[in-house]
Amino acid sequence: MSVFTAGIIIIGDEILSGRTKDTNGNFIAKNLISSGIKLEEIRVIQDNKAIIKESVKLFSDKYNYVFTTGGIGPTHDDITSESIAEAFDKDYKINSEAFKILEKYYPKGEFNTSRQKMSKMPTDVELIYNPITAAPGFKLKNVFVLPGVPKMMEQMFINVLKNLKKGNPKNITTIETDLYESKIAPFLNDIQNKFNECSIGSYPYFNFISKTGGVNIVISSWTMNSLDQVEKEIIKMIKFNGGNCSIV
Amino acid sequence: MSVFTAGIIIIGDEILSGRTKDTNGNFIAKNLISSGIKLEEIRVIQDNKAIIKESVKLFSDKYNYVFTTGGIGPTHDDITSESIAEAFDKDYKINSEAFKILEKYYPKGEFNTSRQKMSKMPTDVELIYNPITAAPGFKLKNVFVLPGVPKMMEQMFINVLKNLKKGNPKNITTIETDLYESKIAPFLNDIQNKFNECSIGSYPYFNFISKTGGVNIVISSWTMNSLDQVEKEIIKMIKFNGGNCSIV
Repeated sequence: MSVFTAGIIIIGDEILSGRTKDTNGNFIAKNLISSGIKLEEIRVIQDNKAIIKESVKLFSDKYNYVFTTGGIGPTHDDITSESIAEAFDKDYKINSEAFKILEKYYPKGEFNTSRQKMSKMPTDVELIYNPITAAPGFKLKNVFVLPGVPKMMEQMFINVLKNLKKGNPKNITTIETDLYESKIAPFLNDIQNKFNECSIGSYPYFNFISKTGGVNIVISSWTMNSLDQVEKEIIKMIKFNGGNCSIV
Repeated sequence: MSVFTAGIIIIGDEILSGRTKDTNGNFIAKNLISSGIKLEEIRVIQDNKAIIKESVKLFSDKYNYVFTTGGIGPTHDDITSESIAEAFDKDYKINSEAFKILEKYYPKGEFNTSRQKMSKMPTDVELIYNPITAAPGFKLKNVFVLPGVPKMMEQMFINVLKNLKKGNPKNITTIETDLYESKIAPFLNDIQNKFNECSIGSYPYFNFISKTGGVNIVISSWTMNSLDQVEKEIIKMIKFNGGNCSIV
């Protein structure tokens, strides 16, 4: 069973300054895992040409699919397309298909040079259509270049995802218990050692007012068809330790 | 005027799977910028020892301050402390101060081996105290190792921040206008070229129901004491183009 890998590069000074909360990373992450694509890394980087080039080249070599968000708008600080052209030694110029789409979208006389800039791209790309404001993203090699505005990014990403080669979705079960993580840790460790084809993650939660808490135990595997046996052993272990649990 | 730089490493399969939305990155980002520390990069990486080691070493060389979140709990999948020990060629063993804190915190007879694991750290660290569940983080060289649970991370980070050397906070002004980004882009570009000591970012927003939108223009500088002149020119430009604006 093949597993495809992916990386996300979020290009945005506004995320690094804390001004904007990124939601694109999580949106892409959730959709990839349910499509059998393993997201291995997210980087939030500065609006800086050298850094964009270096990150995109590295990710393109390392992962099957790369998604970038941000920096493809009309202003001077939108430098993603030009940086990616340089990263792959492509010319950066008007894409005639993108130009026509944008020319048609704007009222006559309002398709100014800044708006035309949104049709400047590396050569040899495939367009990713934008159903909202017409300004397209593009695909170059294994890199999918998407806008930063979440509403646009999300619709365009969903369309991109339809055409990607996918693996089998990751098999995942979550068990919630009211026992503390540190109480069950040694037992979980034993169960993990017994089933090395899955990964058992444990994510504590706390209610800081009632001072109660527990843990979500996430069993996941890219290769096991059934997690039933692991689930049974964990439930047995929780009951043995006097805890309650439910599958969530 | 000196500027301190920082990088954040978020260690967490649960973020990459989309199961958990990271909020720690944004919390740290906002607090750093208002303390005059420039956040240059955020990486979300897998729970994998080799990757943690490589990322921590790289960031420690590259930035003045490094913050890691996640992976310092009691379970088998908490491998941050051990990885950081290896990254800096330190032994990984019980820290006697952390051991005493945890021993005191847990009821007699309940300080099991998993809980004791939370006192295992690289040698030569300074503890970062945890006011909520006692389990401390630590500082090694310029790396601050914090938990992933936001409520704990936030309180511990705020305490860490108090003792960091800070630069002057970044000077920031935001102007909101109802003009579209692509309309004002060429004028903004001219203003940016005139004032190269500041950076002018433009962040469009859209209301997808009313089909209206506009842009937030963020003027920021680490070195200029006043942004008044840049602000005036931008406001003049917006009015010249028939737009409304306000300082937000």
